[in-house]
Amino acid sequence: MVRDFSKLMDYARHVASGVNKVIAEVVSGGPSRLYEASLHLINAGGKRLRPLALVLSGRMYGLDEGVGITAGASVEILHNFTLVHDDIMDRDQFRRGVPTVHTIYGEETAILAGDLLFAKSYEALSRLTGLLPAERLVNAFNELTWAAVTVAEGQALDMDFERRWDVTLDEYLEMVYKKTAALFKSSLVIGALLAGAPEAEVAHLEGFARGVGIAFQIRDDVLGLIADEAVLGKPVYSDLREGKKTVLIIYALSRLGPDERSKLVSVLGRRDAGVDELREATDLIKSTGAVEFADRLADEYLRSGLDSLGKTKPVDREAMDLLVDLAMYVTARNY
Amino acid sequence: MVRDFSKLMDYARHVASGVNKVIAEVVSGGPSRLYEASLHLINAGGKRLRPLALVLSGRMYGLDEGVGITAGASVEILHNFTLVHDDIMDRDQFRRGVPTVHTIYGEETAILAGDLLFAKSYEALSRLTGLLPAERLVNAFNELTWAAVTVAEGQALDMDFERRWDVTLDEYLEMVYKKTAALFKSSLVIGALLAGAPEAEVAHLEGFARGVGIAFQIRDDVLGLIADEAVLGKPVYSDLREGKKTVLIIYALSRLGPDERSKLVSVLGRRDAGVDELREATDLIKSTGAVEFADRLADEYLRSGLDSLGKTKPVDREAMDLLVDLAMYVTARNY
Repeated sequence: MVRDFSKLMDYARHVASGVNKVIAEVVSGGPSRLYEASLHLINAGGKRLRPLALVLSGRMYGLDEGVGITAGASVEILHNFTLVHDDIMDRDQFRRGVPTVHTIYGEETAILAGDLLFAKSYEALSRLTGLLPAERLVNAFNELTWAAVTVAEGQALDMDFERRWDVTLDEYLEMVYKKTAALFKSSLVIGALLAGAPEAEVAHLEGFARGVGIAFQIRDDVLGLIADEAVLGKPVYSDLREGKKTVLIIYALSRLGPDERSKLVSVLGRRDAGVDELREATDLIKSTGAVEFADRLADEYLRSGLDSLGKTKPVDREAMDLLVDLAMYVTARNY
Repeated sequence: MVRDFSKLMDYARHVASGVNKVIAEVVSGGPSRLYEASLHLINAGGKRLRPLALVLSGRMYGLDEGVGITAGASVEILHNFTLVHDDIMDRDQFRRGVPTVHTIYGEETAILAGDLLFAKSYEALSRLTGLLPAERLVNAFNELTWAAVTVAEGQALDMDFERRWDVTLDEYLEMVYKKTAALFKSSLVIGALLAGAPEAEVAHLEGFARGVGIAFQIRDDVLGLIADEAVLGKPVYSDLREGKKTVLIIYALSRLGPDERSKLVSVLGRRDAGVDELREATDLIKSTGAVEFADRLADEYLRSGLDSLGKTKPVDREAMDLLVDLAMYVTARNY
């Protein structure tokens, strides 16, 4: 049964349009080359789903949509900052189907463009000064900061894992929570905090974000192994070539016999690995049932997230329903 | 006549000790390699003069010293973030007499360490949540953000100038204001804002910071040309090799005849330039009277800054006197 996401998509476009206007205002100035570099990835696409989550969680507790959109620009800019720097660190050449910032502008400017975006994410939020009780804005700043710290820690773990062969599932889940789920969590929390939602409600949203965020990343890992380049917006096999310890790799390494394990290890993390080797490695991974394992794990996390959302008491029920749609949308099996 | 800075130095040590404690608390956690890299430069030294300025401007309007020290840790961490990333961009191998972060930990980790410090600068400030009226804290966050944006713009200008030969003195002054004076200005302003100082007072502090900050950088340019390695904490001639458009270079280029100008241009920005060429280039620059010009310019900016400070109406006169000492100290001719 295919779920109908048309209502969610209509609202997503509406929010994205508002968010893009705020971003264009905030990320403007000179020197022009720095600002061009800073806008390159943002303008290359993206559905603005984190801002959407923020607007919806805010609406659940009565937050004005326009306020949510401004704060949404903040988390979207922060997200793009992390992508610009991650692409340098991971030496990725493509994202969203276009060359990465450092590929076009050079590494120096890409580092600086990321830094500027980082600062601009706070500037976007600062536009709410005077429009809300200052206490709420302070809470939102602090949550944004928590996200920025946590995402950096998650990226460090992800890089450390590239050099390790004994990463456990629990370590993977910690990394994914920090690198991927944390900013989704903070988006939801900032919406609720700006609305002045009670602490218990914020805790339920955190549970929702944790489940959905981890489920999303697990599905993304699977997609990274089996989707084609057009869907990924970047070369296939990137994860294998970079030696990323995805849930699939961790599972496969724990299941393969010594010989096959050695074969897989000999390919992972080799940037010059050939397509034939990579295809063989993919088959090895699949042969362990890693994809089915990942799917079940994602289903469990999604279920746990939805359960947590079900405990909230929103004033705007439609906003909550759209958040459920969003959860189903980002964790859908597109393979 | 040598000015006696012993009182200032005693107080600077007192503030630095408090700031270092806050930094150690805020910049702690895991993964350990990331945190080690983040602390490397901070622990290599530095007099914590920006925190000192913040504490003193706060005290001028009645701010609790402990509050100023916590906020001071914030600007110090932000400062160190910019140094870590600048060193990558400028490919500098030494600072404060030790190898730079990327030289030890690699570029990927250095980028991430800078990002973490950036986030931690906000985390330090967030420790004041609930201790002060939230409006003041929001103002401080916004000022910190202004500094982060402005310093990034200043660094972009500095890098752009390396590839240009027609940089004017006005362009130089704008760059220096953004890259160097801005964070000093924000340090002073944050102290005053946290104390709830009136707007007119904040404006006078801004004028003070602008004058002193620019004067400091002009002196630093001169020092970069004529001091030895032990004083600089980095190799001599770095500025020349990187093609930095210091006030000395801009002045010299405007004064030299075509042949000598060509000779200077042929050395600047060449990372493989030999010591003999560099010594010759230095002599050429000095022959134009660039050092004397720079000294006069620094004197003027210092004077203008002190005039602006003189217009303030502090409640703590001793704090203001120490700020005058600080201005004299950072702009002293150590050559």
